[in-house]
Amino acid sequence: MADIGFRAAAANLSDIAAMGGTPQYLLAALAIPHIGTRQHVLQLYRGMMAACRPHHVRLIGGDTSASCGGWFISLTLIGMVPPRKALFRNGARIGDCLYVTGTIGDSLAGLKLLNEPTRRTALSAKHRQFLIGRHLRPTARVAVGQWLNTHGFATSAIDISDGLSGDLRHICEESHVGVELDLGALPLSKACRAYAASRTLDPMNLALTGGEDYELLFTVSPHQRPRLEQSAVGRGFSLTCIGEIRPYRFGIQALSLQGKRHRLANTSYTHFT
Amino acid sequence: MADIGFRAAAANLSDIAAMGGTPQYLLAALAIPHIGTRQHVLQLYRGMMAACRPHHVRLIGGDTSASCGGWFISLTLIGMVPPRKALFRNGARIGDCLYVTGTIGDSLAGLKLLNEPTRRTALSAKHRQFLIGRHLRPTARVAVGQWLNTHGFATSAIDISDGLSGDLRHICEESHVGVELDLGALPLSKACRAYAASRTLDPMNLALTGGEDYELLFTVSPHQRPRLEQSAVGRGFSLTCIGEIRPYRFGIQALSLQGKRHRLANTSYTHFT
Repeated sequence: MADIGFRAAAANLSDIAAMGGTPQYLLAALAIPHIGTRQHVLQLYRGMMAACRPHHVRLIGGDTSASCGGWFISLTLIGMVPPRKALFRNGARIGDCLYVTGTIGDSLAGLKLLNEPTRRTALSAKHRQFLIGRHLRPTARVAVGQWLNTHGFATSAIDISDGLSGDLRHICEESHVGVELDLGALPLSKACRAYAASRTLDPMNLALTGGEDYELLFTVSPHQRPRLEQSAVGRGFSLTCIGEIRPYRFGIQALSLQGKRHRLANTSYTHFT
Repeated sequence: MADIGFRAAAANLSDIAAMGGTPQYLLAALAIPHIGTRQHVLQLYRGMMAACRPHHVRLIGGDTSASCGGWFISLTLIGMVPPRKALFRNGARIGDCLYVTGTIGDSLAGLKLLNEPTRRTALSAKHRQFLIGRHLRPTARVAVGQWLNTHGFATSAIDISDGLSGDLRHICEESHVGVELDLGALPLSKACRAYAASRTLDPMNLALTGGEDYELLFTVSPHQRPRLEQSAVGRGFSLTCIGEIRPYRFGIQALSLQGKRHRLANTSYTHFT
């Protein structure tokens, strides 16, 4: 239950991060089934607060009710941005560079590891622990979002919650642009590569389809690139340029490792199928 | 579904009303089961917005996800109060008069009417319609709450959502006071009296135990009473004095129609039993 609370809070913190805001107040609404105990509820709140504490977020209210179905957890997180200053999805311009923070695909690899019926050993305990940790205790990139916003680096931003292929589509649609994505540049962790190799999976697929990494995807004017990259190094932020914004008619195309271009399928998570 | 949306929004508006605030922004989180249709969701939002529109509340966000259980609706309503000015439950003082707005017990009577297996006719269509309307489309007393707050009339306030006997207890506990409740003074509508008479129920019980009337319960210093009542008449607000705040050791006592005192049982709705 603590992991569920942590993940629910991280997803909300990440939404604030993607707008360059400062998270401040949390409201938690719970519907608790008959099998729910006091201990479950305490663990849930403990997990939520563990995610929120580093950001000094205060729990200011919410609601609890009985559920005749399963558990329901609805969090509302209130964040602040300076007046008339927030990052949106609709500001990407042709020629902008597309960046992503950290590494992607780890969370999906962690989920797959948790769902393997029996523990298979062709992966080191360290890699296994890293990937499961990335799934159960994701880090919202709040400091990066604030830095992008206050320095005016990003023209658009979103967090990767449903998967790179789908969230990238949101930026393109709302900015009315296309994109050329360089698959060879996608930042993959050693653990993710090792996991993919051990299960004969394509790590690129994990990176494109895996949601819940909660990394930030954002666009930057080419003139800003030197300032951005220098400033990021100074702060210890990990950023990777993974593509370039193109005209709308170009669509969403991926450049493969072999130098071939193809249209990118939308393989991200859909809530209603 | 429209009635469910309306009731969910009214419950939130009423919480803001009880603090003397101005409701402003609504966030709606829905979990939609497999059987839920687009039409259901539209109706739900229509009901919500019908309750919010008179108060110029804007829907600014929320979330939708799939539910493997039933429907789950969680609303967050953001309201504003002037700096350092809000009504709380903890300000009642010994000697204060206890007031309630409108009439109470109607919503429970409406619910009982809806749950009657076959329609019994010993009640006029007008009364029936009034009581069911009070249950399905309750009015949050936003204007009354703002008026109590801005004029500094109320020392404490709460809305009746779980039932008079329980919500009164919240004021007493948080203000560390007792109360003498005058049962003969409880404001009952003609329709509620007619319903109780036709079903040989005690209307007082409907008023004490019935939740979801969303009327305001508040306390006023005796010196303020003349100003309060004069101002209320001018604005067309319906208020009734139903008791007096006593010392904590007095407890919560009710004065019956026959002039007898007894301790009031807590018969309000409990979410977890």
